[in-house]
Amino acid sequence: MNNIKCAEILCVGTELLLGDIVNTNAAYLSRKLAELGIAVYHQTVVGDNPTRLKAAFTSALEHADLVIVTGGLGPTCDDITRETAAELFGRELVLHEDILLQIEGYFKATCRNMTENNKRQAMVPVGAKILYNDRGTAPGLILEDEAEGKRMVLMPGVPKEMTAMYELSVLPYLKAQSDSAIASRNIHLFGIGESAAETILRKMMDEGVNPTVAPYAKEGEVRIRVTARAENEEAALALCDGTVEEIRKTEVGQYIYGVDVGSVEAALVAALRAAGKTIACAESCTGGLVAKRIVDISGCSDVFLGGAVTYANSAKEKLAGVSHETLEAHGAVSEETAMEMARGVRLALGADVGVSTTGVAGPGGGTPEKPVGTVFIGLSAEGGDTFKKLSLSSMRDRDYIRFVSASNALHFALKNL
Amino acid sequence: MNNIKCAEILCVGTELLLGDIVNTNAAYLSRKLAELGIAVYHQTVVGDNPTRLKAAFTSALEHADLVIVTGGLGPTCDDITRETAAELFGRELVLHEDILLQIEGYFKATCRNMTENNKRQAMVPVGAKILYNDRGTAPGLILEDEAEGKRMVLMPGVPKEMTAMYELSVLPYLKAQSDSAIASRNIHLFGIGESAAETILRKMMDEGVNPTVAPYAKEGEVRIRVTARAENEEAALALCDGTVEEIRKTEVGQYIYGVDVGSVEAALVAALRAAGKTIACAESCTGGLVAKRIVDISGCSDVFLGGAVTYANSAKEKLAGVSHETLEAHGAVSEETAMEMARGVRLALGADVGVSTTGVAGPGGGTPEKPVGTVFIGLSAEGGDTFKKLSLSSMRDRDYIRFVSASNALHFALKNL
Repeated sequence: MNNIKCAEILCVGTELLLGDIVNTNAAYLSRKLAELGIAVYHQTVVGDNPTRLKAAFTSALEHADLVIVTGGLGPTCDDITRETAAELFGRELVLHEDILLQIEGYFKATCRNMTENNKRQAMVPVGAKILYNDRGTAPGLILEDEAEGKRMVLMPGVPKEMTAMYELSVLPYLKAQSDSAIASRNIHLFGIGESAAETILRKMMDEGVNPTVAPYAKEGEVRIRVTARAENEEAALALCDGTVEEIRKTEVGQYIYGVDVGSVEAALVAALRAAGKTIACAESCTGGLVAKRIVDISGCSDVFLGGAVTYANSAKEKLAGVSHETLEAHGAVSEETAMEMARGVRLALGADVGVSTTGVAGPGGGTPEKPVGTVFIGLSAEGGDTFKKLSLSSMRDRDYIRFVSASNALHFALKNL
Repeated sequence: MNNIKCAEILCVGTELLLGDIVNTNAAYLSRKLAELGIAVYHQTVVGDNPTRLKAAFTSALEHADLVIVTGGLGPTCDDITRETAAELFGRELVLHEDILLQIEGYFKATCRNMTENNKRQAMVPVGAKILYNDRGTAPGLILEDEAEGKRMVLMPGVPKEMTAMYELSVLPYLKAQSDSAIASRNIHLFGIGESAAETILRKMMDEGVNPTVAPYAKEGEVRIRVTARAENEEAALALCDGTVEEIRKTEVGQYIYGVDVGSVEAALVAALRAAGKTIACAESCTGGLVAKRIVDISGCSDVFLGGAVTYANSAKEKLAGVSHETLEAHGAVSEETAMEMARGVRLALGADVGVSTTGVAGPGGGTPEKPVGTVFIGLSAEGGDTFKKLSLSSMRDRDYIRFVSASNALHFALKNL
């Protein structure tokens, strides 16, 4: 049984209320809590105003067993999260010498001067659990009221500090509050829409209790999350794996390109490494995005040699060896040009695989024959060249068409490896 | 005077509470309301649960003059935003024939079948203002309670539908609620940190009332927002422009690369177009990101020819013409290689300007001489070649180092044009 049934997420920060930054913390924490089977009914953003902060804390503690707060732990007098939480839990703040030493050490390590107000970050409510911050100065805190069954976790607002602290300290703490474990598998699909996947899996989605099955759309592709609860993580994963196998046997199975693989670019890099092969790319409409997404994967240098961004026709000839005749006869947006680009960059860099994109990303440049959204993916390997034509909706915008074109190029290379 | 002093933003959607999507709507609306001088004290996310939705609406209407709601206007019975708002404002829902026709037309245009439940989207609270949706089926609504001075704006949750509707209908409506106009200028700085900019502008920030001056950090660069209120937009902009000129005269002035230019890549494309020049790039550590960011700018084909992603050393030789000797003598991460890459790609594509990046993005690959975060930017033009060395903190992650390196390359090309 899980002692924590439902949680609220409270993000403190004027920069959020001004819209200067997007609240990625709330999405991250919601996803992490969902993975633990903890329901989140509210996310709230509030500023550093004492009255409003206290009201938000009070309301959250009324509704939820667990309140996770990010932000407002900084050194300035605007940062009142720590004080407000201590007050609501009826705890005094005392100076914590070890934290003070850590903060002083952090300033030394980053060659900066520590100011007097940084000491405020070493003030800790009596009885609070302290969460180590290895990326910054503000420690996190956990306050518990056993009698009321209420818990409040305070973490810094800087996403990198917060996520590191969550993984290191908060996740183990939350897992320890439950005598069962929950685990998930993410099935990655490509080439099928969310509603089509839902239609096929409807029965499993409706009837599945443990594991549960839920599809969700993710940047132009679809994922299916299978989640199970059992006495330990291993048993929960085994339950998930049974359902993953069932899903493989449905019509959805043919669209699966991986389970828990992170992304199509990560799956491609892993598959190339496993096959001992290298890749190069030539891009027109995606303009570097295919290469950028491969380079997003740390360690890609084992398999990625490089690429040509051949935006102008002259660049297609000079960097990717497309013949002038092909461009004249078929145009830049054609299967012939796509395949010559893929072959040209593969041969130029001596790669095993060459992949290319050429198309009309819009908003301008469309014609009746080749409207906005027309994209050709080329693929070249020792065994021969091939292509794929996309006809994306011209109602989509430039960013979407480029992103989905890049996804298709990455997936096409993966599938044909 | 503005009839609307403060607003709350309420986003409805289970996918937000599960963390499947990041709440960009709240950030967008907060920024837009800040531009109008309307304070936002809370952003709230709530699911499609009737009790919690009604409680959230009630609380928001208590605290604010204006409540902007996104999401929950879809066709399924889960979507209860419209009904909940109508109930709180004491309005009946009636079928709106014109909206029904529009929805039917939308389905015809996108070649899809309209289902019976789509008719729910044509139900409108009596007396509500209707906001046209040119990107989807759900119209937006404005409900007003003149006596209480309360307003509620309902918009779809899909960001593209919401932002289009805001610009088309909601912004003019909100402007009409005020007998004065508010306007802003955004000054773009590069090469100075937020706290350094704040120190220089402290007096203006503290004493400025109309215009106000506020710096904010934005993805590795700093912007200063100057905001003024006057009888009309023209007069407000004139007030802003006076302050912009004052800021130009401070020490901050030397870091300004543009006012209201959108981004460094947009500024570069505009400057190249104005100068009638073309650019090409050669990228190692940024792996296509410089090209990708230039291609983000619609119409870049006038000035951008293409680029080489030269991740492997062999690619640096083959695509960017770097000599084997240079790589042997100085290594891939060096000013010599950076300048040869820039010159090589410029000459290969016949561009006026060549720009390059080569560095250690990490997490691996650092050495004592060239730690993670060491990046060289190369620049080549007819007049000669030059370079810039970056020593970014090795505590930064791969994505940050690559993004900031790309920003530096774009800015270095802009500055030296």
